[in-house]
Amino acid sequence: MSSIPAKKSLVSPGRKPMISREDIIAAALKLLGPSRSVSTLSLREVAREAGIAPNSFYRHFRDMDELAVALIDMAGESLRQIIGDARQRATLEVSVVQSCTDAFMEQLRADDRLLHILLREGTVGSDAFKRAVERQLSFFEEELGQDLIRLAALKGSGLCQPALTAKAITRLVFTMGATVLDLPRDKQDELAAQIVKMVRMIIAGTQTLAAIGAKKTD
Amino acid sequence: MSSIPAKKSLVSPGRKPMISREDIIAAALKLLGPSRSVSTLSLREVAREAGIAPNSFYRHFRDMDELAVALIDMAGESLRQIIGDARQRATLEVSVVQSCTDAFMEQLRADDRLLHILLREGTVGSDAFKRAVERQLSFFEEELGQDLIRLAALKGSGLCQPALTAKAITRLVFTMGATVLDLPRDKQDELAAQIVKMVRMIIAGTQTLAAIGAKKTD
Repeated sequence: MSSIPAKKSLVSPGRKPMISREDIIAAALKLLGPSRSVSTLSLREVAREAGIAPNSFYRHFRDMDELAVALIDMAGESLRQIIGDARQRATLEVSVVQSCTDAFMEQLRADDRLLHILLREGTVGSDAFKRAVERQLSFFEEELGQDLIRLAALKGSGLCQPALTAKAITRLVFTMGATVLDLPRDKQDELAAQIVKMVRMIIAGTQTLAAIGAKKTD
Repeated sequence: MSSIPAKKSLVSPGRKPMISREDIIAAALKLLGPSRSVSTLSLREVAREAGIAPNSFYRHFRDMDELAVALIDMAGESLRQIIGDARQRATLEVSVVQSCTDAFMEQLRADDRLLHILLREGTVGSDAFKRAVERQLSFFEEELGQDLIRLAALKGSGLCQPALTAKAITRLVFTMGATVLDLPRDKQDELAAQIVKMVRMIIAGTQTLAAIGAKKTD
């Protein structure tokens, strides 16, 4: 809450005179954690954390569902940014896998609550949340699919059904990633190594299926 | 509630004179559904559904966590039974994949609440629930790994890291399966076809990695 002067006396103690959409999002993120899902947040609770009256919430969001979907969309954008950056730093296929997996795991360990939201809300929560997660994952898969096509062209290797390959990789990495947070650090490294190997397995598989003449692409 | 004679008058109306562990489990299952997780069940609610006083619950379970873990264990055993049967009906590798995936999808569609529990409680719920799901999945993966080794020997095809391959297949099928229930029937068929292709991709990948001399097995 930057520097808003005067008027302080008109505001009841503990309540902030002005609040932005970002402040509400920040308050919601503070309440979330590895074992706390968006679905369990109440408007009253978020308002209290943000230091506003529950009614002020409605100036920025229609309801809690709109806030949750906003959080999921932010999470998807943030993930695409992180993986996009990791991709830029890599050149060959295997190092893309390694680089992206490293970036993903690092973000998970950094307690990135946005990423946690994306990992969790696809299985719990309302249909609207699931749809929002599904949409963000499909954006991500679309980019990954394009990337796989580009890499296959670069290396002259085959690629069977890029969209399906991208989906298999994304869903597997996400579901494995979701279990990381409950593990001690050494087990996390083991899991990260497993994820890299699994992704390499899928890539080897798609190349092999392409090579043995599965000519269908989607 | 089979035939328990007499004493009826001593029991308050709507409350059953005797109740088994299985009755409590059945009551809990009735309350669960595609959007209702075990974590959200209360003891009071389960007792009401079973038609017993909350105190009678404790004759069979220490607490709700113990009931939840019992449900998860049952779910794991049930899944291994179903996939074991499907495996028996198949002979060649691809048809094992198809047969097992079909059995899994059929069970999902049949609104098998035990299976839903297994799909969901790994991501939400307490650490104890997650550990219970993890244990059941590892039993399942152990069997699948043995199966992959047997099939690879039968076909003379390579197999790179059977345990990791089994884990990749299981986790991917589970995470894809978890999204099936929210889809209309035609989309469910599409997803089932995608799952079969993804599993074939992983199997092709593990064979290729084995062939190109990745000699490490786990």
